[in-house]
Amino acid sequence: MAKPLNIGMIGYGFMGRAHSNAYNRVSNFFDLPLRPVLKAACARNAAAVQAFADRWGYESIETDWRRLIERPDIDAVDICVPNNLHREIALAAAAAGKMILCEKPLAMNSAEGEEMCQAVERAGVPNTVWYNYRRVPAVTLAKRLIDEGRLGRIFHYRANFLQDWTISEDLPQGGAGLWRLDAAAAGSGVTGDLLAHCIDTAIWLNGRISDVGAMTETFVKQRMHNLTGQVEPVGIDDACAFLCHFQNGSLGLFESTRYARGHKALYTFEINGEHGSLKWDLHDLHRLEFFDHGDEGRLRGWRSIHVTDHSGDHPYMDKWWVPGLQIGYEHSFVHQVADFLEAAARGESAAPTFRDALETQQVCDAVLRSASERQWATVG
Amino acid sequence: MAKPLNIGMIGYGFMGRAHSNAYNRVSNFFDLPLRPVLKAACARNAAAVQAFADRWGYESIETDWRRLIERPDIDAVDICVPNNLHREIALAAAAAGKMILCEKPLAMNSAEGEEMCQAVERAGVPNTVWYNYRRVPAVTLAKRLIDEGRLGRIFHYRANFLQDWTISEDLPQGGAGLWRLDAAAAGSGVTGDLLAHCIDTAIWLNGRISDVGAMTETFVKQRMHNLTGQVEPVGIDDACAFLCHFQNGSLGLFESTRYARGHKALYTFEINGEHGSLKWDLHDLHRLEFFDHGDEGRLRGWRSIHVTDHSGDHPYMDKWWVPGLQIGYEHSFVHQVADFLEAAARGESAAPTFRDALETQQVCDAVLRSASERQWATVG
Amino acid sequence: MAKPLNIGMIGYGFMGRAHSNAYNRVSNFFDLPLRPVLKAACARNAAAVQAFADRWGYESIETDWRRLIERPDIDAVDICVPNNLHREIALAAAAAGKMILCEKPLAMNSAEGEEMCQAVERAGVPNTVWYNYRRVPAVTLAKRLIDEGRLGRIFHYRANFLQDWTISEDLPQGGAGLWRLDAAAAGSGVTGDLLAHCIDTAIWLNGRISDVGAMTETFVKQRMHNLTGQVEPVGIDDACAFLCHFQNGSLGLFESTRYARGHKALYTFEINGEHGSLKWDLHDLHRLEFFDHGDEGRLRGWRSIHVTDHSGDHPYMDKWWVPGLQIGYEHSFVHQVADFLEAAARGESAAPTFRDALETQQVCDAVLRSASERQWATVG
Amino acid sequence: MAKPLNIGMIGYGFMGRAHSNAYNRVSNFFDLPLRPVLKAACARNAAAVQAFADRWGYESIETDWRRLIERPDIDAVDICVPNNLHREIALAAAAAGKMILCEKPLAMNSAEGEEMCQAVERAGVPNTVWYNYRRVPAVTLAKRLIDEGRLGRIFHYRANFLQDWTISEDLPQGGAGLWRLDAAAAGSGVTGDLLAHCIDTAIWLNGRISDVGAMTETFVKQRMHNLTGQVEPVGIDDACAFLCHFQNGSLGLFESTRYARGHKALYTFEINGEHGSLKWDLHDLHRLEFFDHGDEGRLRGWRSIHVTDHSGDHPYMDKWWVPGLQIGYEHSFVHQVADFLEAAARGESAAPTFRDALETQQVCDAVLRSASERQWATVG
Repeated sequence: MAKPLNIGMIGYGFMGRAHSNAYNRVSNFFDLPLRPVLKAACARNAAAVQAFADRWGYESIETDWRRLIERPDIDAVDICVPNNLHREIALAAAAAGKMILCEKPLAMNSAEGEEMCQAVERAGVPNTVWYNYRRVPAVTLAKRLIDEGRLGRIFHYRANFLQDWTISEDLPQGGAGLWRLDAAAAGSGVTGDLLAHCIDTAIWLNGRISDVGAMTETFVKQRMHNLTGQVEPVGIDDACAFLCHFQNGSLGLFESTRYARGHKALYTFEINGEHGSLKWDLHDLHRLEFFDHGDEGRLRGWRSIHVTDHSGDHPYMDKWWVPGLQIGYEHSFVHQVADFLEAAARGESAAPTFRDALETQQVCDAVLRSASERQWATVG
Repeated sequence: MAKPLNIGMIGYGFMGRAHSNAYNRVSNFFDLPLRPVLKAACARNAAAVQAFADRWGYESIETDWRRLIERPDIDAVDICVPNNLHREIALAAAAAGKMILCEKPLAMNSAEGEEMCQAVERAGVPNTVWYNYRRVPAVTLAKRLIDEGRLGRIFHYRANFLQDWTISEDLPQGGAGLWRLDAAAAGSGVTGDLLAHCIDTAIWLNGRISDVGAMTETFVKQRMHNLTGQVEPVGIDDACAFLCHFQNGSLGLFESTRYARGHKALYTFEINGEHGSLKWDLHDLHRLEFFDHGDEGRLRGWRSIHVTDHSGDHPYMDKWWVPGLQIGYEHSFVHQVADFLEAAARGESAAPTFRDALETQQVCDAVLRSASERQWATVG
Repeated sequence: MAKPLNIGMIGYGFMGRAHSNAYNRVSNFFDLPLRPVLKAACARNAAAVQAFADRWGYESIETDWRRLIERPDIDAVDICVPNNLHREIALAAAAAGKMILCEKPLAMNSAEGEEMCQAVERAGVPNTVWYNYRRVPAVTLAKRLIDEGRLGRIFHYRANFLQDWTISEDLPQGGAGLWRLDAAAAGSGVTGDLLAHCIDTAIWLNGRISDVGAMTETFVKQRMHNLTGQVEPVGIDDACAFLCHFQNGSLGLFESTRYARGHKALYTFEINGEHGSLKWDLHDLHRLEFFDHGDEGRLRGWRSIHVTDHSGDHPYMDKWWVPGLQIGYEHSFVHQVADFLEAAARGESAAPTFRDALETQQVCDAVLRSASERQWATVG
Repeated sequence: MAKPLNIGMIGYGFMGRAHSNAYNRVSNFFDLPLRPVLKAACARNAAAVQAFADRWGYESIETDWRRLIERPDIDAVDICVPNNLHREIALAAAAAGKMILCEKPLAMNSAEGEEMCQAVERAGVPNTVWYNYRRVPAVTLAKRLIDEGRLGRIFHYRANFLQDWTISEDLPQGGAGLWRLDAAAAGSGVTGDLLAHCIDTAIWLNGRISDVGAMTETFVKQRMHNLTGQVEPVGIDDACAFLCHFQNGSLGLFESTRYARGHKALYTFEINGEHGSLKWDLHDLHRLEFFDHGDEGRLRGWRSIHVTDHSGDHPYMDKWWVPGLQIGYEHSFVHQVADFLEAAARGESAAPTFRDALETQQVCDAVLRSASERQWATVG
């Protein structure tokens, strides 16, 4: 019988919804040692957080995150606030002995991230960072194939994350819903928001990155700021691309932008090895493309694998419907909750831990440094 | 504030799960006048239904569907049992004044279906049949475009539903999970199971069907029967295809099989009109393909519309995540629950009603009759 | 050293160009025992045929096909005229001992076709009918795989040929370029023009067809006739679909139309067998889709084979460029010429022979008969 | 009536065949002021070049390119030899007043290229460089759309050219067929062979490149050398990627490799602008993907344009077959010949001229310099 795990949620934006949904659904589909209970939701705006709590079934609300952390009936704290608040909350939660599930990117920079890692490690609290794409079944399957050596020596890794929602110059920056455009709240633009996802997946699949050569661009130089009411300079990167070397000798190529007309959330990656290659695309996330050079010559071709079998072969899919019936974006969060609960019941963290996420942070830092200095930068 | 609507679920199989999930989720995403409450689940096997109730949060169980229907605290009955039990339960539920949500196909045949229609109409209870694919956002969008006249005069409609799970001769028939292969429980094979979906969508999009010319085939002639322990003749159709005329003068072509190696649940349809065409495919259900002959000549091409915008333009999608992030199979059920609750609060039914579903049943009957007699059959 | 084979071409339309191109190119790419020489082109309009001869390099012209056939310097006659002239020319050419390459469909009906078969067989002249799609490399590869038993027992074959060029009611019928819309010249509409291709491929890949259940439609009932200047009834079928049984027990589904908005020449086929499936699409003719159920379960997927390898594995492709570089429509004709020259040098015909093409004609006849009588028709 | 233009072909490899085919075919399809005549083919190996001449219809052979250039009956010289010979031949041909069609890349480096430009400009001879992909109809259509302003302000350009044919360590370098792996003959590896194509197209579509940040890699460090019989260091780049800025302010990302398992000749580009985006892929070269932000919101999607219409809208396609029937790789060369003959008849060059091709050479030089020095390099 599953034991309850009381969740304290800080924040109620897009990610607050995605995580709440995952907590609510996981026990319907997975048999787990722990059962999440939505104990309290917290945000400064009492009316807004009460509405959020009512919708999702949180038992109570708080308007001060310090009070939430102090509550003895809270087992785990979920940090769903802008990046500039991650560090302080995480340090306090760790000090209070709470488990922590932190939105990505881990921190504003590696220095903050290192401090957060030390805090959770010192406190010995289970932790995880919400790089959810690792747990899209097609991506998890890719990981398994690579770990089995199906691709052999790796030559290339390429990824991009393309969006088009900030092209209009009339879009303001800052405040609710738009804090990702405000450098003070977000730390960076697409680098921390989008490339961080690509980097986390890349490190997981292909190992560490040694050095990077990057460029960034801000296409729209100033925007109305919602918090000040003034037209202010834009401090974030609208686009970022970088070349890199992985420690295994393969080459990497990464790109991200919010100015690629026609792409809403096109996160794709491809990895080329001696014996085969893999491709994935968030716009059709239930498919994995696989090329196996071991196939008979005349019959070689990219296989479009509909990752929906429930025989146990396709990661997580035996929990859902029947073969051929696709799942969606939100399921990746359910899977992360399931894995976190399994680990937490043993007193362990679920990957990517704070420490894992720090690696991604270090690459992001190197990318921004390289772009700023127009020269290659070493990671870490 | 939403009023509770107490659900009594009969059955706990694949569809029981899909519906329960929909009831559990709908209030997190939709603002509705009614809020489903999982009051009771019912099945003959007490231990099994108790486990099901525990997983999904049903407050109580019953082991006799007649007792469930008698309960005054049940507002709506959801019929998720094999086809041969639909009629009896529906008649009793209607007589008891319960709202009814019935799995498809409506009945074993049109005669049963007509009786059921009369029962719910006489009782005046809100009702619906779970032809869930109407509420895949891409399919709903197709409906809107057709209704707006974007395609002009229609010439062709074609659909197929291809699976491959019964090719092995070692697969038995009958009993839990395999009643769809048992003619006594299912009434027919792919015709009622798969083609019924294609026909429901087709009538919705393109109007009534006048006459049909069909063929059926049973590739594996006998299988072990789980209920008798004997090898017995297979009474269902493994494959069925038919030609037809729609009342609007267009031609139809339908096919379904469980012997199409490589397809798990490939439900596709295409409709060709004077001014444009539409295509959809369940394997990538979040996409709609649209060809607009009104586009500038040199730039005409099939558009792959990623039906994930949340600006209100893409049906239901403003309730979910952000543009570019796909939903899955199960969301179609959530949408049907949402629409049913809206209608039920007004004392109305949600399409497809029993009466709507009877039309599909009549086409299925004509198809089976045509195949049996090797000649064209008039519908109804 | 290749010996010359003198070609006499009758007709100079679209197919006259496609064949002339094939004759001109084949010796640049293939090493063959015979080398086609464009000896004479023939048509009633002297100026037009002279221009055609100049463009393509024909050494001479004729304006009477009987004179062309009489010429002793003509070895092979290529019949590229409307269907209603095939029989008379073929009978005369056979009587004159000429080899014959005849455009498809073979004849106006099976009776004519049988007469033509007997004529070429009596004369013992090498012959072939231009069902060119057999020699698209991807299609030839499909044939090899099926013959090797890679698909196992066959359950389903489906094909369609969709166009959209006759939707406008203002399009006239009859005369140069539009004789395909004139029943007197073409014999039938899409059945002989488009479905005949589908049927030829199907018989080649999957064996003979036993019986058919068909429907036809003429959406635009009358059109201006270019030869009479009058609005006249349209005698052809605008669309045709049929169900069928193959002699191997598999089911067939065929459709063709010129009213499928968005499709220019979408000839597709799919074949499903016990162990695998194949798909092909003329709009991307250099690709073959292959599903191999023998693949490891979690890695099964449709392979998109880019049929451009030149290692000898991909039929005909070693003659062309390098892997990855696609060929086009016209190459299928070059391949047929190459195979015909190989066969002719041995005094043999190249498939499909007149006799092979008669089978397709018999299916077409049965299809039209079934549609007319609204009942199933036996082939042959 | 077209006047003859006598071609002298130097080289008989893969490109020699592609060009010869183009000369042979162009007059069958295009109405032009000049008609190419295959006057002489030249290579050191007399037997080999004679066989080549026989196959393609060259009237004579030469074994010394200087003699070919001296011949008064040669109007135009086609340079199809390894890159290290381009300069010397071009200078001599220009001095002799011959028109020149030179394979790409123009030269071993910009200094050579500049010398060659000055030579043809001084001599005033029509010239062109065989960057054939500009004349794939889908690519030409992309150019027209961009020039019309359909995309608006450009933000991003990305291209890659991926192959997989040199992964095996057993593959030797040098000599016939493998000179592209020999730095002495080729100058560089993928940069001059593959990226040069990407750069030429990019400059044509999006304007000049200002600066580049690049990396190169040689995965297999030594290979048997066919000319020396020794295992020797590999001097070429196996892979090359670079970031860049275009003069119009947009960002560029380019990659090329021969180690991308599963890709034979996957040249793709994508360009993102304020109002729309375009994508193209050599593996399906007859298609252009177009996203038009001006489309109605709910109906926006990438259009897959089958660039085969013959109404004059789709560049070059009115010369070929009928809508829906695709052409192949080789047709791009036919188109370039057609455009060259049009220009040459007026005494003009056809783009890309030597001068145009020098720009690409300058970018290649900057890329190699940047990679070598691990810092950004300015172009030119």
